[in-house]
Amino acid sequence: MSRTTQVQNVTINPKVSIQDDFWGRYIRLVQEVVIPYQYEALHDRVPEAEPSHAIANFEIAAGRREGGFHGFVFQDSDVAKWLEAVGYALAIQRDAELERQADAVIDLVGEAQQQDGYLNTYFTIKEPGKRWTNLNDCHELYCAGHFIEAAVAYYEATGKPKLLDIMRRMVDHIASVFGPEEGKLKGYDGHQEIELALVKLYRLTGEEKYLQLAGFFIDQRGQQPHFLQEEWEKRGKTNFWTGKTDSLDLSYNQSHVPVREQNEATGHAVRAVYMYTAMADLAALTGDETLRKACERLWNNIEKKQLYITGGIGSTHHGEAFTFDYDLPNDTVYAETCASIGLIFFAQRMLRLTPDARYAEVMERALYNNVLGSMAQDGKHYFYVNPLEVWPQACSCNPGKHHVKAERQGWFGCACCPPNVARLLTSLNQYVYTVHGDTLYTNLYIGSELSTKLGGAEVSIKQKSSYPWEGHISLEVNPAPGAAAEFGVALRIPAWSTGMEITVNGKAVAMDEEIEQGYRIIRRAWQAGDVIEIRLPMEAHLVFAHPQLREDAHKAAIQRGPLVYCLEGVDNGEPLSSISLSADSGFSERFEETLLGGAVVVETSGLRVNPSGWNGGLYGRTKAPVEPVPVKAVPYYLWGNRGSGEMKVWIAEGRS
Amino acid sequence: MSRTTQVQNVTINPKVSIQDDFWGRYIRLVQEVVIPYQYEALHDRVPEAEPSHAIANFEIAAGRREGGFHGFVFQDSDVAKWLEAVGYALAIQRDAELERQADAVIDLVGEAQQQDGYLNTYFTIKEPGKRWTNLNDCHELYCAGHFIEAAVAYYEATGKPKLLDIMRRMVDHIASVFGPEEGKLKGYDGHQEIELALVKLYRLTGEEKYLQLAGFFIDQRGQQPHFLQEEWEKRGKTNFWTGKTDSLDLSYNQSHVPVREQNEATGHAVRAVYMYTAMADLAALTGDETLRKACERLWNNIEKKQLYITGGIGSTHHGEAFTFDYDLPNDTVYAETCASIGLIFFAQRMLRLTPDARYAEVMERALYNNVLGSMAQDGKHYFYVNPLEVWPQACSCNPGKHHVKAERQGWFGCACCPPNVARLLTSLNQYVYTVHGDTLYTNLYIGSELSTKLGGAEVSIKQKSSYPWEGHISLEVNPAPGAAAEFGVALRIPAWSTGMEITVNGKAVAMDEEIEQGYRIIRRAWQAGDVIEIRLPMEAHLVFAHPQLREDAHKAAIQRGPLVYCLEGVDNGEPLSSISLSADSGFSERFEETLLGGAVVVETSGLRVNPSGWNGGLYGRTKAPVEPVPVKAVPYYLWGNRGSGEMKVWIAEGRS
Repeated sequence: MSRTTQVQNVTINPKVSIQDDFWGRYIRLVQEVVIPYQYEALHDRVPEAEPSHAIANFEIAAGRREGGFHGFVFQDSDVAKWLEAVGYALAIQRDAELERQADAVIDLVGEAQQQDGYLNTYFTIKEPGKRWTNLNDCHELYCAGHFIEAAVAYYEATGKPKLLDIMRRMVDHIASVFGPEEGKLKGYDGHQEIELALVKLYRLTGEEKYLQLAGFFIDQRGQQPHFLQEEWEKRGKTNFWTGKTDSLDLSYNQSHVPVREQNEATGHAVRAVYMYTAMADLAALTGDETLRKACERLWNNIEKKQLYITGGIGSTHHGEAFTFDYDLPNDTVYAETCASIGLIFFAQRMLRLTPDARYAEVMERALYNNVLGSMAQDGKHYFYVNPLEVWPQACSCNPGKHHVKAERQGWFGCACCPPNVARLLTSLNQYVYTVHGDTLYTNLYIGSELSTKLGGAEVSIKQKSSYPWEGHISLEVNPAPGAAAEFGVALRIPAWSTGMEITVNGKAVAMDEEIEQGYRIIRRAWQAGDVIEIRLPMEAHLVFAHPQLREDAHKAAIQRGPLVYCLEGVDNGEPLSSISLSADSGFSERFEETLLGGAVVVETSGLRVNPSGWNGGLYGRTKAPVEPVPVKAVPYYLWGNRGSGEMKVWIAEGRS
Repeated sequence: MSRTTQVQNVTINPKVSIQDDFWGRYIRLVQEVVIPYQYEALHDRVPEAEPSHAIANFEIAAGRREGGFHGFVFQDSDVAKWLEAVGYALAIQRDAELERQADAVIDLVGEAQQQDGYLNTYFTIKEPGKRWTNLNDCHELYCAGHFIEAAVAYYEATGKPKLLDIMRRMVDHIASVFGPEEGKLKGYDGHQEIELALVKLYRLTGEEKYLQLAGFFIDQRGQQPHFLQEEWEKRGKTNFWTGKTDSLDLSYNQSHVPVREQNEATGHAVRAVYMYTAMADLAALTGDETLRKACERLWNNIEKKQLYITGGIGSTHHGEAFTFDYDLPNDTVYAETCASIGLIFFAQRMLRLTPDARYAEVMERALYNNVLGSMAQDGKHYFYVNPLEVWPQACSCNPGKHHVKAERQGWFGCACCPPNVARLLTSLNQYVYTVHGDTLYTNLYIGSELSTKLGGAEVSIKQKSSYPWEGHISLEVNPAPGAAAEFGVALRIPAWSTGMEITVNGKAVAMDEEIEQGYRIIRRAWQAGDVIEIRLPMEAHLVFAHPQLREDAHKAAIQRGPLVYCLEGVDNGEPLSSISLSADSGFSERFEETLLGGAVVVETSGLRVNPSGWNGGLYGRTKAPVEPVPVKAVPYYLWGNRGSGEMKVWIAEGRS
């Protein structure tokens, strides 16, 4: 990359520790259940799960045991994602036994690394002569990327450099194979991931070469002559997965045109948002305007035309992909958990690029709905696909909906989503704030303690939040003892809220001034013990969709605070399609202690078709009568935890 | 088949000739355009179409030329379906040139027949040693069935026995291979068709052995040990189409259980209705009660739970199949043209079994909507899939809808539907009436002349009909000169109608008596020149769907007479989802001369979302305003003839 590198005026990952009732429970679940469970799964010791063979592959590559490679070509990444989550977990709380397990895994990874730095058990065990011959399908750089992320996280948590050293050697090896220099491959991975990982490695080490390699991969993508196409022609146009000759869909992995020429989110959604994340990173670090503009165009396209109300992305399971503007079917949806997690990454990087609350809006939407809803309350069952409408019998009996499951599944054959949830939740502290210069931006209202430098002073801020059930938030601002500091605190005004009130030390703050890009900025000389209090009225309300969004026409969703609600058959009877809401009916809200750990449920009165009043056959001239019916909505993230039944986010609206 | 054969008291195919303005045009289109066009296509002389190679295969099998087999394994059936349509066309009007073409094709077919009677070009040319080794996939009996149907039709039209003789030799060969006797295969075809064809051969020839063979195939299906499963295991569980080992879905071809145990329409819809047709034939001819009951259960399941309002069947393109009760998605639908044609066959056979108007209702629904709509006004372009809702961009850009086309396509690679339309339209005269004993049942109100024996006399009945635009129908009854005859005329009371009026010689007939299973029966001594007049008010009205039919909840369709209507973008703007109808608004109706040959259009006032009044992003708290808008609906069968655009049958209904 020939562009000037200028380090931006952003504090990356200000030190934050989460102290939050709501999220604390999920983070503990990851620490106490998910990470240990995944550790066992990686070691093939979970009886009810398909063997992962991921650790076994490393043992074989390390020469510790005999055997063949099993699993997906990217099986290694499961180990990496586990190590990354462990890194974040240890940053929250050191744990000697967990660290011992991780160190042992890292030792194993080190043993599996080849003399020249190469690390990938598939090619080491199964096709040693075929390294870097099928970038399109084989995920070598992708796996390396996940190990880089793990190495950075583990080093930051423990100070132990072993995995970092392993991965720096691997990256040196990669840089000897790929690059702009004569004789090196002008390639890049079919599944973006290493790009954002190399930026993390650069941020940790300050070594420009990592940033340059990330830039090379991003810039090279989609250039002519087309690397992936030439590679594919060279191997006889065969597809690794099917073994057959096949066509090559370049937009599937966003290599159809160079990244700076891309205007619309397309192809495999996870690949897309991982790439956009790295693009935003590079734009921020290099000041590259064309890259920033491409990021903004792609973001706008997602936010304004291809985003489910739950924060899901990807409208089709064919290629787990985006389709096109305003095509957001609720029942044949994909909305993969990993894609929403990647969208949260992208949002975080956009917030670093430009402090605009709309990035945080989407982050909050995806986090509290699509992502949170993917995990069962036991931490052991997950949705990969996060539908907005489910008819369980259709999932079984209509092949076009086989990919949609009515109940969360155990650790899958392709175990991408559960470890991604684990690493996101354990690193949630990285998403709460952004610091631009001497302004602190609050993106998520999550109880936490922040320590960072603002206005020249060390400052700690203790946030308390009753989210997502109530909108009472306080921030106690504490510059270091004896110091007063002038800096800005930018409080996000959620787009779903009306009537937000802010006080500082009990004194109301005007809400009609100092508003910048969705934040109320409070700039002053802060004294120790200053308290900001925020009141965000959380009332349930209807949400309507853009008129181009055909699937949601004449329907409404219920939202309260950041939570999207849904109707379930277990509460409302079936079919849910018989129910309609009216904008005129009010909502009542109550905290139901016994509902899956407690949640605010929303009740209203609607109309339901009385099926006994229908006297046609399949079709008839006389409409079935409707009758008033109480309607109960529960947070979307809790759906499907009470057995298999219908679920619906978008409900018919209007008098009918 | 060991059951007693009792010939039923039904006149099969009373002599009817269609003389109808509306259908006459389509029948002429088949005679003048479709049959010649298909003849050229079969001979690979249509430049814009993929070569069929169907005639070429016969030429190679006959030894007239060298070469290899090309096309689908069932390519022969295209030739058969063309010959069958030619037979019906010649029955309408002899045509020396067409007959010469057909005779030449029949000569060729005869030359391609093997010494032992075997006839199938795929196995003759390509896999001569593998006859009858893959009944599941290879359509040998299916192709034979179509040739039998062609032979019967051609003989009945021309009296020429050559094709009939060819096929009787082929059937003798089949009977030497399949049957209950020791040493014969206990098999049946993966694609039902020969069963109903053998019944036709029996009806023509009176030879019991054909009926018995049909019964054998029907009875054998689904029995244990399972023939198709054993055969599949024997060939290494490979699938003919993919060449790979695969699972075997027995319900796909309705062999999951014996036919008498089947309760729900399942699997490939064309296979299903072809089989049910033969079952109804056998039940009628043998008096087999369990078979009749199975037919009624299967019919009821389709009519009451798996039928689109357009008469389409098959809810998924995966296996072109039924899914399950009340699962009738409008936009991912299959509703194959051939399946609706097969449903019309099934309805006709059920009418022969039991004179109940509900079979005719479905026949009319499928004929005037799904089937008629499949053909373009030029006769050269067809829909295979007949959706009830189309967003053209989704057909291109959402892979789950790639099978749905927004415009009719040319002669396809798998040319099943166009020849099926041709043979149905040219044999439409067989569907107008059923004669049970001395009662004539009118099923379709189509202008025609009937000659049959009723009440012991030769009777001719001239029907005039202004269908489908108006409901003025007259039947002039003419017993043979000098004879008076007492018999019943049963006039179907369409389920969509209210206020039907009937007069005989100008004198009103009471409409509250003599009604049997949906028919008003008029029994009297008829004199030459007696005239029945029928007034069926045809007013446009809304139709609502069963409350279990989730896809159509809070929506209504527009119907007028037998025609289902739709909205198109070209008339109403897009997106059509923005429009809602109200049951309160009246309809106005007018004949629009310039619309695709002339049609009654239906107009009403609805509400449309004003997109310029929407000020949210993708989602917002304030509903976009609606404004009154004129709505224009056109007959469904005409959709997609004015360029690519949105189309919708089910429209939001209610004030919203």
